[in-house]
Amino acid sequence: MATDAQAFVKEIPSKSEQFSEWYTAVCLKAELADYSPVRGCMVVRPYGYALWENMQRWLDDRFKATGHVTAYFPLFVPEAFLKKEAEHVEGFAPQVAWVTHGGDEKLAERLAVRPTSEAIIMPMYARWIQSYRDLPVLLLQWCSVVRWEKATRLFLRTAEFLWHEGHTAHATSEEADAECRTILEIYRQLLEDVLAIPVLVGKKPPSEKFAGGDWTYTLEALMPDRQAIQAGTSHFLGQNFAKAFGVKFLDRDNVEKPVWTTSWAVTTRLVGSLVMAHGDDRGLALPPRIAPIQVVIVPIPGKEREKVLAAARALAERLKAVARVRLDDRDEYTPGWKFNDWEMRGVPLRLEIGPRDVAANQAVLVRRTGGPKATVAIEGVEQAVARALDEVQGEYYARGKAFLDEHTLSVATMEALEEAMRERRGFVRTNWCGDQACEDAIRARTGASPRVIPLDDRPQGACLVCGRPSTATVYYARAY
Amino acid sequence: MATDAQAFVKEIPSKSEQFSEWYTAVCLKAELADYSPVRGCMVVRPYGYALWENMQRWLDDRFKATGHVTAYFPLFVPEAFLKKEAEHVEGFAPQVAWVTHGGDEKLAERLAVRPTSEAIIMPMYARWIQSYRDLPVLLLQWCSVVRWEKATRLFLRTAEFLWHEGHTAHATSEEADAECRTILEIYRQLLEDVLAIPVLVGKKPPSEKFAGGDWTYTLEALMPDRQAIQAGTSHFLGQNFAKAFGVKFLDRDNVEKPVWTTSWAVTTRLVGSLVMAHGDDRGLALPPRIAPIQVVIVPIPGKEREKVLAAARALAERLKAVARVRLDDRDEYTPGWKFNDWEMRGVPLRLEIGPRDVAANQAVLVRRTGGPKATVAIEGVEQAVARALDEVQGEYYARGKAFLDEHTLSVATMEALEEAMRERRGFVRTNWCGDQACEDAIRARTGASPRVIPLDDRPQGACLVCGRPSTATVYYARAY
Repeated sequence: MATDAQAFVKEIPSKSEQFSEWYTAVCLKAELADYSPVRGCMVVRPYGYALWENMQRWLDDRFKATGHVTAYFPLFVPEAFLKKEAEHVEGFAPQVAWVTHGGDEKLAERLAVRPTSEAIIMPMYARWIQSYRDLPVLLLQWCSVVRWEKATRLFLRTAEFLWHEGHTAHATSEEADAECRTILEIYRQLLEDVLAIPVLVGKKPPSEKFAGGDWTYTLEALMPDRQAIQAGTSHFLGQNFAKAFGVKFLDRDNVEKPVWTTSWAVTTRLVGSLVMAHGDDRGLALPPRIAPIQVVIVPIPGKEREKVLAAARALAERLKAVARVRLDDRDEYTPGWKFNDWEMRGVPLRLEIGPRDVAANQAVLVRRTGGPKATVAIEGVEQAVARALDEVQGEYYARGKAFLDEHTLSVATMEALEEAMRERRGFVRTNWCGDQACEDAIRARTGASPRVIPLDDRPQGACLVCGRPSTATVYYARAY
Repeated sequence: MATDAQAFVKEIPSKSEQFSEWYTAVCLKAELADYSPVRGCMVVRPYGYALWENMQRWLDDRFKATGHVTAYFPLFVPEAFLKKEAEHVEGFAPQVAWVTHGGDEKLAERLAVRPTSEAIIMPMYARWIQSYRDLPVLLLQWCSVVRWEKATRLFLRTAEFLWHEGHTAHATSEEADAECRTILEIYRQLLEDVLAIPVLVGKKPPSEKFAGGDWTYTLEALMPDRQAIQAGTSHFLGQNFAKAFGVKFLDRDNVEKPVWTTSWAVTTRLVGSLVMAHGDDRGLALPPRIAPIQVVIVPIPGKEREKVLAAARALAERLKAVARVRLDDRDEYTPGWKFNDWEMRGVPLRLEIGPRDVAANQAVLVRRTGGPKATVAIEGVEQAVARALDEVQGEYYARGKAFLDEHTLSVATMEALEEAMRERRGFVRTNWCGDQACEDAIRARTGASPRVIPLDDRPQGACLVCGRPSTATVYYARAY
């Protein structure tokens, strides 16, 4: 078994020393994803897709519970539509994949493969929405989008990725903003409660907002290399798209007004964040609530193969009600090999069962997070497993929170900020006067970008750059 | 209420007289779909998408229960890959949408927007499959595909449509064929048991098989205009794609062999079939197992608004455990308007509750399939509703089966076939020698195409065209 473990470890670079290589090796070896022959595009393999499916189901339940419905809009956006909102097209055009031919025929107008769907959804809203009675429209779709990239970082930077995109229309600015915040809170719960990734929640500074929107809410997580990653965004689009696309409604006061819209999304990038956040030198490590397999049962047959297998099967059957369980009864691998393999795949709990355990009506419980092996009685094993899953979930979150707190600093001078970015990285809290020139100065001197202004911000002190009074607290970080 | 009903009916053309216009009107009015500004593409609206989601969940549960896993492969297929299987590219190239530019850059090789994914999945299988231990691979993806079409018939013929596509790889021909049949049976259950659409199940004649495959299994339904519609297909691809893409495995006997592959799909076309199969002059009609809303509760407040609304709410709460229920407590519409509106949307059951019902602790149950109103006691209403849903489901299937049987004829001569296709349409059973020339003669003289050779075929008699001994029984029909 020692040899097995060494062989496994050898194939995965050290997380602390070669973070980027470690990340790719884990994605490939745990069979989450693979490179495809299409430049910039990835294949999401079944184990990686199962992670996405679990997020999708969790989110979709929340979306439905908060009154949202699902639809599907065309993959293609005619160029003229993309151009209707000036700032929007400027933001996305450089990244667009263009369809120019259908069969042998050259198209009269080229079609963008959707980089985002505002420009194809708004014309439909213009048709569907007439009166305040038609509002709000709370709609989303699950699909892929394309943003032309040459580099491929599995899950993190690919030309095509999977997401949902919400697109809502409201009668008032207040309602639209409340919708943005409802979604932001759902995303926060997904990140913190399910993925066990603590986040900073707030608004983007204007320079980082969505192209065409008024402001953008964001969730920012800190990865172990102390770089920030944007985990989800919720955009308040004001009336910009409504005006560009003529989406108007007759209000209660009999006046025709443009609607207020929002859009919001999380993407398969979250799978990448999950890998980075929790994995270690043994491979993937998954919080129980998102793990496709929560408990793996490994029989150690010894000389009583049939008896042990029967007990393992009965145990699996028993646990089905409380956990996603897998019995690994393959003959062609040793128990030791299986231990390492399932640890590499991040399964939170392992139950080992051998002849002596069968005789004593017990099993041995091992946690992916470490700690001593524990003997658990089969009688009541459901409760023991459920409790262990909860504890492991909490452990992942607590570790993440400690890491985030440890790597969030406050600085009062540019020198301190520069040093922090050079030495420690992480999030650095700064005071900002609101002037773009000051932000630009920080970007130029540190290579960091402004990630988030906290939701409940109470600006104080002086701007780090110019010394004028602060109007916002901004967290800076180097970022993915 | 009579006026309401007339107004509703006026907007929907007669199903028996103007079938095609009726179909489009129902899709639009029930808000299943809408035309988009992109030529050939449709928007699937939330109520239509909910039908697709229900099919998706039902299927996905079956797929998972039979050992399949889900993945996601790139939207784009490099042209060179599409060309690797000669028959395949010939079949699909005329329908392909081509991406030629990424941002401002002209691509070195153009990319097909996937018309189907064999050519992008097989190269991955070549990488993933080495040994018999890696087999079978039982994998599917849910996505959209594009086949360039100018015409738009909502759900039935659009340039982009939603589907799943299964792609499996096996060590033997027998296993691959068994997989095709397993899937075919899952599809049959979806059609008959869930959608209440009876089907003919069997093989396509060679002229109608999938481009690049060895043979194709199909399910064919008969629509009320007595035209056939292909409801799903399951393709036995032999070793063709494996050879073209070099997907080989080392077998138990230590010999390297190409794998055997299958692919299979159903599409959003099924939503269109569902509309056509069951709808009537009042609009959509949905079998309970697929209906997004199975029971609508319409309060008739009279002079006791609060009391009636409270009872309606309690009733809705009670029924949640047994049915997908919607309480329509909108103030701005009359009960009569609501009756018509929900009938138009195809909701299988309606429960009306007024002051007298509240006093008597009862409600009035009305079925979308017709028949007298029934009074049901609130005590035990769950059982009454569950029973009524089952009965309505059975009624839809029985009607469909009677229609299919009535419109399936046998003929022994070309004259009889021509007459049948001219007068009655429907499915016409014929004997066939297996010669392509005889099939071509029938197509040319009748405008009908060969739809299906039954699974358990016992050919007998003489070929309708040439008189040689029959080698297959073929059902002909005009088709969508």
